[in-house]
Amino acid sequence: MNDFDAFSLRFQRASGLGLELLDQRQLPDNEVWLDANTPNQMWHHIECLAVRGAPMIGVAAACCLAVFANSKSAPNRDDVAKAADYLESSRPTAVNLRYCCDAVREVCRNSANLDDLEWRTQVAAVAQKLLDRETAMCDAMARHGAALVNDGDGILTHCNTGSLAVPGCGTALGVIRLAHRQGKRVHVFVDETRPLLQGGRLTTYELRREGIPYTLIADNMAATLMRDGKIQRIFVGADRIAVNGDFANKIGTYTVAVLAKHHGIPFHAVAPASTIDPRCANGAAIPIEQRNADEVRGARGQRWAPADAPVYNPAFDVTPMALVTSHILDTGVFDAAALAKLEGGFAAVHQ
Amino acid sequence: MNDFDAFSLRFQRASGLGLELLDQRQLPDNEVWLDANTPNQMWHHIECLAVRGAPMIGVAAACCLAVFANSKSAPNRDDVAKAADYLESSRPTAVNLRYCCDAVREVCRNSANLDDLEWRTQVAAVAQKLLDRETAMCDAMARHGAALVNDGDGILTHCNTGSLAVPGCGTALGVIRLAHRQGKRVHVFVDETRPLLQGGRLTTYELRREGIPYTLIADNMAATLMRDGKIQRIFVGADRIAVNGDFANKIGTYTVAVLAKHHGIPFHAVAPASTIDPRCANGAAIPIEQRNADEVRGARGQRWAPADAPVYNPAFDVTPMALVTSHILDTGVFDAAALAKLEGGFAAVHQ
Repeated sequence: MNDFDAFSLRFQRASGLGLELLDQRQLPDNEVWLDANTPNQMWHHIECLAVRGAPMIGVAAACCLAVFANSKSAPNRDDVAKAADYLESSRPTAVNLRYCCDAVREVCRNSANLDDLEWRTQVAAVAQKLLDRETAMCDAMARHGAALVNDGDGILTHCNTGSLAVPGCGTALGVIRLAHRQGKRVHVFVDETRPLLQGGRLTTYELRREGIPYTLIADNMAATLMRDGKIQRIFVGADRIAVNGDFANKIGTYTVAVLAKHHGIPFHAVAPASTIDPRCANGAAIPIEQRNADEVRGARGQRWAPADAPVYNPAFDVTPMALVTSHILDTGVFDAAALAKLEGGFAAVHQ
Repeated sequence: MNDFDAFSLRFQRASGLGLELLDQRQLPDNEVWLDANTPNQMWHHIECLAVRGAPMIGVAAACCLAVFANSKSAPNRDDVAKAADYLESSRPTAVNLRYCCDAVREVCRNSANLDDLEWRTQVAAVAQKLLDRETAMCDAMARHGAALVNDGDGILTHCNTGSLAVPGCGTALGVIRLAHRQGKRVHVFVDETRPLLQGGRLTTYELRREGIPYTLIADNMAATLMRDGKIQRIFVGADRIAVNGDFANKIGTYTVAVLAKHHGIPFHAVAPASTIDPRCANGAAIPIEQRNADEVRGARGQRWAPADAPVYNPAFDVTPMALVTSHILDTGVFDAAALAKLEGGFAAVHQ
């Protein structure tokens, strides 16, 4: 049994269970690791956005429950199941969080024939399995995507899709990371990603730490770089993929896709097959939430627009399949032709 | 002789000369008027960006020189010409500033046959003429542009092109303002315009003050609004127009133009004919300056990206004529067909 020592999550198993998380609020300037050994601590970390990224939140919650189950306070199965309910309440809309809490609750319910050491070990094993699953999916996506990258490519990415958002190497950023590790000389152009600036704050931090050459830009600067021939390929993440290949991702992704089409640059969404929603026939069926107006009136607690300025602030936008060169899933690469061959569209490869 | 009481510049002539400027650094929250009655005051206001916008700076400098020439300190012609040299040094690259200082110096040099009251009155008259000229050009552009606006239109604009940047009603924003005053129900979508946020800070302020309905967006949100049918027409300013119709404007304008083309939305640049540069055959000949990296690493003095993040920060981008529905000049509206008919291209209508 090895420790899992990821970029932003440390799950210690070799010498007594423990969990630490990198505080994403303090990046890029300060690398502060937070203890997340009790459900109370974890709930607070999720609620205040110290940990973010749907896969990261879900897996971190499961790891926390594993540490709690094996702690000196010796909780019984009911206590752990209740703690799972409690953690789930920290972010009610996060599907990954519910899925991971479900996995722990299942052990608590279906382990009546096991002794205390056995069911507690099983909870830890489930957490490890969830971690390993995400990591393996990232590796598979990275392999598929990196094969498309050429030596010398300029690559544009949007938002943060790396090891801060996902346990493992990431989705779009995992592709870039692997291409770099394969020795390909890549240069990454990073959309700062207004309004929440995940590109400017977090993607820059990840690239800098790994020594991958990059340039930070405001979102409205990418078009000129494309026309000047600086960008050969674009990788972005996906929050939800419809059956016909349309997908929702961080606001600004659709703009990048239109610009890519205009300039003839390949554009790829990178996501695990679990991102496919078989209930969404197309992009129009994906609900888009509006976020707080203050995020656009300013940034990071500072305001520069009128305090009462009317604001449009969708969290995501939808990119139609017509603008996607191919989807890079852990299960393979799907362009429009490959998707057309799947009976029932992407619903066929949903996991 | 009337006072000139513009949105952001008050040139008092009726009861003794005086000049006040609206402090743009403190907008939108505080409307603070600054005295600009001495060359020293004016130099400082330009240098610290209390007053901005190339036409605004030039005309304000001329007004200040007029106030100075007629002040109790009773400067002679040489003193005023030297003050003009001094003011010009506050922003060496600003062509409008040089042009306006030239006009005042010309009076000082060519008025040997006039008595003190006469040449001083002439300096004030020159300043007024410069003000009136800018205002009249704005009015002409606004008339041409507003004729294109339909009742109920959603209009996208970028950066600040209103009465804070130009004496008069503005260029692109002047068009919108006049359409609104004509009783057309328009709704303005305002690009915040990273990195310096002139849309978020200044265009919102102008629209709010005039009661024109608007919605502030991050620059990467416009594409979704276009696809959703919320935007019927786009007006932007222009910093320099090449002979073939390509034009440079605030960074982000080219992105808007590509998005407009993709969605089939009319896209117009609004500028006085003096913006045409007969020495630039096409957009490739327009020099683009890189600005300070800290502007992209954060905003308004706050930093969120790594302090050493490599940054690309062009002040402007170039939009090719192929993406322009028509240029709206004070001298008329020019689409590609009208431009093709001009012998020598736009050089023919340069003033």
